[in-house]
Amino acid sequence: MSLSPGKTLRDLRERKPLVHQITNYVVMNETANATLALGALPVMAHAREEVEEMVALAGALVINIGTLSPPWVEAMLAAGKAANAAGVPVVLDPVGAGATRYRTDTVKRILDEVDVAVLRGNQGEIATLVGVQAEVRGVESVGVGGAPADLARTAARNLGLVASVTGVVDHVSDGKRVLAVANGHELLAAVTGTGCMSTAVTGCFLAAKRDVPLEAGAEALAAFGVAAEDAAHDAKGPGSFHVGLYDALAALDPVTLDERARIS
Amino acid sequence: MSLSPGKTLRDLRERKPLVHQITNYVVMNETANATLALGALPVMAHAREEVEEMVALAGALVINIGTLSPPWVEAMLAAGKAANAAGVPVVLDPVGAGATRYRTDTVKRILDEVDVAVLRGNQGEIATLVGVQAEVRGVESVGVGGAPADLARTAARNLGLVASVTGVVDHVSDGKRVLAVANGHELLAAVTGTGCMSTAVTGCFLAAKRDVPLEAGAEALAAFGVAAEDAAHDAKGPGSFHVGLYDALAALDPVTLDERARIS
Amino acid sequence: MSLSPGKTLRDLRERKPLVHQITNYVVMNETANATLALGALPVMAHAREEVEEMVALAGALVINIGTLSPPWVEAMLAAGKAANAAGVPVVLDPVGAGATRYRTDTVKRILDEVDVAVLRGNQGEIATLVGVQAEVRGVESVGVGGAPADLARTAARNLGLVASVTGVVDHVSDGKRVLAVANGHELLAAVTGTGCMSTAVTGCFLAAKRDVPLEAGAEALAAFGVAAEDAAHDAKGPGSFHVGLYDALAALDPVTLDERARIS
Repeated sequence: MSLSPGKTLRDLRERKPLVHQITNYVVMNETANATLALGALPVMAHAREEVEEMVALAGALVINIGTLSPPWVEAMLAAGKAANAAGVPVVLDPVGAGATRYRTDTVKRILDEVDVAVLRGNQGEIATLVGVQAEVRGVESVGVGGAPADLARTAARNLGLVASVTGVVDHVSDGKRVLAVANGHELLAAVTGTGCMSTAVTGCFLAAKRDVPLEAGAEALAAFGVAAEDAAHDAKGPGSFHVGLYDALAALDPVTLDERARIS
Repeated sequence: MSLSPGKTLRDLRERKPLVHQITNYVVMNETANATLALGALPVMAHAREEVEEMVALAGALVINIGTLSPPWVEAMLAAGKAANAAGVPVVLDPVGAGATRYRTDTVKRILDEVDVAVLRGNQGEIATLVGVQAEVRGVESVGVGGAPADLARTAARNLGLVASVTGVVDHVSDGKRVLAVANGHELLAAVTGTGCMSTAVTGCFLAAKRDVPLEAGAEALAAFGVAAEDAAHDAKGPGSFHVGLYDALAALDPVTLDERARIS
Repeated sequence: MSLSPGKTLRDLRERKPLVHQITNYVVMNETANATLALGALPVMAHAREEVEEMVALAGALVINIGTLSPPWVEAMLAAGKAANAAGVPVVLDPVGAGATRYRTDTVKRILDEVDVAVLRGNQGEIATLVGVQAEVRGVESVGVGGAPADLARTAARNLGLVASVTGVVDHVSDGKRVLAVANGHELLAAVTGTGCMSTAVTGCFLAAKRDVPLEAGAEALAAFGVAAEDAAHDAKGPGSFHVGLYDALAALDPVTLDERARIS
């Protein structure tokens, strides 16, 4: 194990991997800009007619069900299978799982048919998927029983993937180890799509370090959290924080990032 | 009558109602962020497969036809009917009614099949729906005959709802009383989707004060207008004004809001 | 020939033409806001049921295939043909042509069935369409052989339109003359959708100067580039640059614009 978000960020900026994202309407611009600010290349493409060809060019595939509908779900499944066939790692964001049956069932179907490397969600969403009692209000997690570290480990074991559970402290687990990431800022909760952005950043890091998804997942959250800390510095509220987040992602310094990452 | 946007805002922030929005692609991020900045929880969901389940969890439903197409219209109708059945108040934004027959007909169909609590539009859109001569250029109102207060009252009476007609001065009517709201700033017209945001904010206030939609509608426009005044203070143009609007919504102070609201 | 971006901008702000945009999900808010900041009126409408009626009201139609799918392509074709019938000039942005067959084929189909006035793309996209060797990574051009001025001229000749090829220096050609535009800033590459914005601005200028698309195309890129130079002045990174771009578009001064435009 050699955790170094700085090194992974440096590699990512050098290689500029294409990160194919099939995501929701609310955050498309935001996750594309986060990807670009970090140093990777985003591409948004969801047509059944092109997703298989597009994903084969990519360093990672990000699937996010935030505003799902049947044709999009079909594209997610097709892209996910093509990614698996081409050895492209897949990140899944189960936005709102637990809020409606359609969301929960769709996530289960994707997990069933696609080999997902990292599942990045909030506590309520992840708890829903492993049968732990949770309350999800729309797309917000508002109450989950149990310790988040246990939740991450259980999800990783039961679902056979790396579970990345974000909250005040994030927990990333491959079923054996659990890494806690204590970076971030409370203003993240005041801007829509910051969870989706952390998923996109996870895709970027995974594209740069695909062999160790546990570490890529934790490093991504540390990097995103450090950028949030920087953005919060001069923010007057959620609007200026949101803008500052892209400036901070672009300005992330690989050297100090390693010192500032609070991964344990 | 006890108009107090400050009190309603305080209630809203305490209860954090879920505001389900079926809105247009252009402003989804913007209305979600305005909702969140104000203190409520947004959720965007448009699939026929989940809208009925989602809206039953919500404190209000916002329907906005800005980039309508047949599957979305079906979802709007299904969600609207489910909202009615569950006692969830519905706000409708008839974006671009009058510009094309498809928009005008769709709004009429929604008004026919769904019990709408508040109809929030510009003068040209509302005039179109009550048969008053108006010119709508794309989604902008560029010329309407008659006084806006009369228009609001007529629309409220003819359509059996609260009509919220925004302009330089806004007018909100339940068919009997007309409340004029004189807050706001001209920079609102320089940013796309600020009308849609005012509709989302109306949904938030309605979720917090559902029994008096006339007051909720006027208070929402006053609160949004005061936030715009604050945002304009340091703005250098439409871009920085737009960012400042979220900061200002989050910073709205319930105490001074009551003093600053210009509702008559 | 009388190149004057300042004069065209003044005309545009006076007439406030409606610019109908059928564009991608990622940049809809951004291109609408760029259009509005510049002084024109944007309208986003993509339903087969209304595009023909909407485009007849417009001063220009912008088609952008960034997140294409079959129903949207049908709407683009219908709107494009209706625009041609009504004498409304059409701008096409072939986002990602060359990355997948679906994108390349769709652009060719649109060029075949619709009379396009200006084709605005990056070097890789334009090269793909005229059979010049190019590498397109997602929606980014990462390597094209040959001089961009020759590429613009060849594309204009072969496709029978004005080709507007953006890059470090932009080249706009009608097949005979080639205008080079040397405005802009490297931060444009750090924000998603700035190419799409330049296409929307091209649509605005074309609506104000439809008889000379070569000049309208070059003037639009000069104006957008000058705004980018202004926005870069106080920017701390891609986020604040993005915000500043709208402020700068709104603040563009027609008098100094002519002096600052570097068109040769």
